[in-house]
Amino acid sequence: MNHIKAIAFDLYGTLFDVHSVASKCDVAFPGRGQEISNVWRQKQLEYTWLRSLMNRYIPFEHVTEEALQYATRHLGLALDERAVRPLSDAYLRLQPFPEVPEALRALRGHGLKLAILSNGSPHSIDAVVGNAGLRDSFDHLLSVDPVRVYKPDNRAYELAEHAFGCNRREILFVSSNAWDATGARYFGFPTAWINRGGKVFEEMGQRPDWETNGLDDVAKLFA
Amino acid sequence: MNHIKAIAFDLYGTLFDVHSVASKCDVAFPGRGQEISNVWRQKQLEYTWLRSLMNRYIPFEHVTEEALQYATRHLGLALDERAVRPLSDAYLRLQPFPEVPEALRALRGHGLKLAILSNGSPHSIDAVVGNAGLRDSFDHLLSVDPVRVYKPDNRAYELAEHAFGCNRREILFVSSNAWDATGARYFGFPTAWINRGGKVFEEMGQRPDWETNGLDDVAKLFA
Repeated sequence: MNHIKAIAFDLYGTLFDVHSVASKCDVAFPGRGQEISNVWRQKQLEYTWLRSLMNRYIPFEHVTEEALQYATRHLGLALDERAVRPLSDAYLRLQPFPEVPEALRALRGHGLKLAILSNGSPHSIDAVVGNAGLRDSFDHLLSVDPVRVYKPDNRAYELAEHAFGCNRREILFVSSNAWDATGARYFGFPTAWINRGGKVFEEMGQRPDWETNGLDDVAKLFA
Repeated sequence: MNHIKAIAFDLYGTLFDVHSVASKCDVAFPGRGQEISNVWRQKQLEYTWLRSLMNRYIPFEHVTEEALQYATRHLGLALDERAVRPLSDAYLRLQPFPEVPEALRALRGHGLKLAILSNGSPHSIDAVVGNAGLRDSFDHLLSVDPVRVYKPDNRAYELAEHAFGCNRREILFVSSNAWDATGARYFGFPTAWINRGGKVFEEMGQRPDWETNGLDDVAKLFA
């Protein structure tokens, strides 16, 4: 891994568990939390892709609110308009996966520059990372917001290349989202896919360079 | 509806039932046909959006094959490489929804120009429409293939405007896919959403101009 000088991490689902919002949904709709969280996350992703294609970018917090409204209507649940924002704010207080803080320390110990490259707005990324006490772990917190298009559009991945000031071949991209790992690899990043749940990779003509079970295994690649 | 001079129809799921492939899947994997069809269709859509965003267009038949490979692997089913093409060919022999042939005749009877505007390749559209004996129902069979990007990118919707040679405000767009109806409406088409299954519409800042239960109700709008 001597050629790797920097790492760009996806945030949602990769460093932080998006389904930690399920418990908050479960308070509002007892017994339905996980189901809401699943539909909510799927629609949140779809809306980022569709809005990018339609050239109708809105910030990620608003996409998240629209996706929540779809999810509850789809599931036949009555969601008070005033409950949308507080419930969506659960996406600002996600839990990092357990191995993440220590793995980030190990990677920094190897002299690597680290960044988050996320669909989240600057405010969302800052809140999630700050609430988890991990702000000092990163050299850059990169949001797609300045380019007003979501991953996997190339303009999103270019942000990491520009921030690190090195060639894409020297930047390891790490994501648990197989579609994101696919996009990153087409862009030209060496790519590690964190597969925590025994999932199958997407079938879009790419394979990740590395597949690991967690971020600790990514750190071991540099040991 | 006096201002409407032409109608552009989505094909998959709107005029033709995509889940008519389930029975063919059920022969290959008894008892799992509907489940395969559901995952297959969802991935087929996702891959059209993701490949468009990544600027990695491949024809719809190939997207369909990749989505089938994902679906069977995701469901833990062993699919022989040689079975991919024959199973995917089920998408060339879809059944029209029952009310479609008569409703198309009624709409032509009102002097409207009719077109299909589909993600399918020219070959796929021609096969589906031809196998159902409906080729004479349409003035244009429009594939996104010449622009090498999938709906809801505006370049796809522009194809109908160019083919009919009239303003988008004079073209009714008809789709059962709420994301497609959303894209068409942002583009500027008056839009009818056919909601056969009691679904909820997408939450991306648009509502259809008309919501109907079938194509017969679209024809009645012109009566």
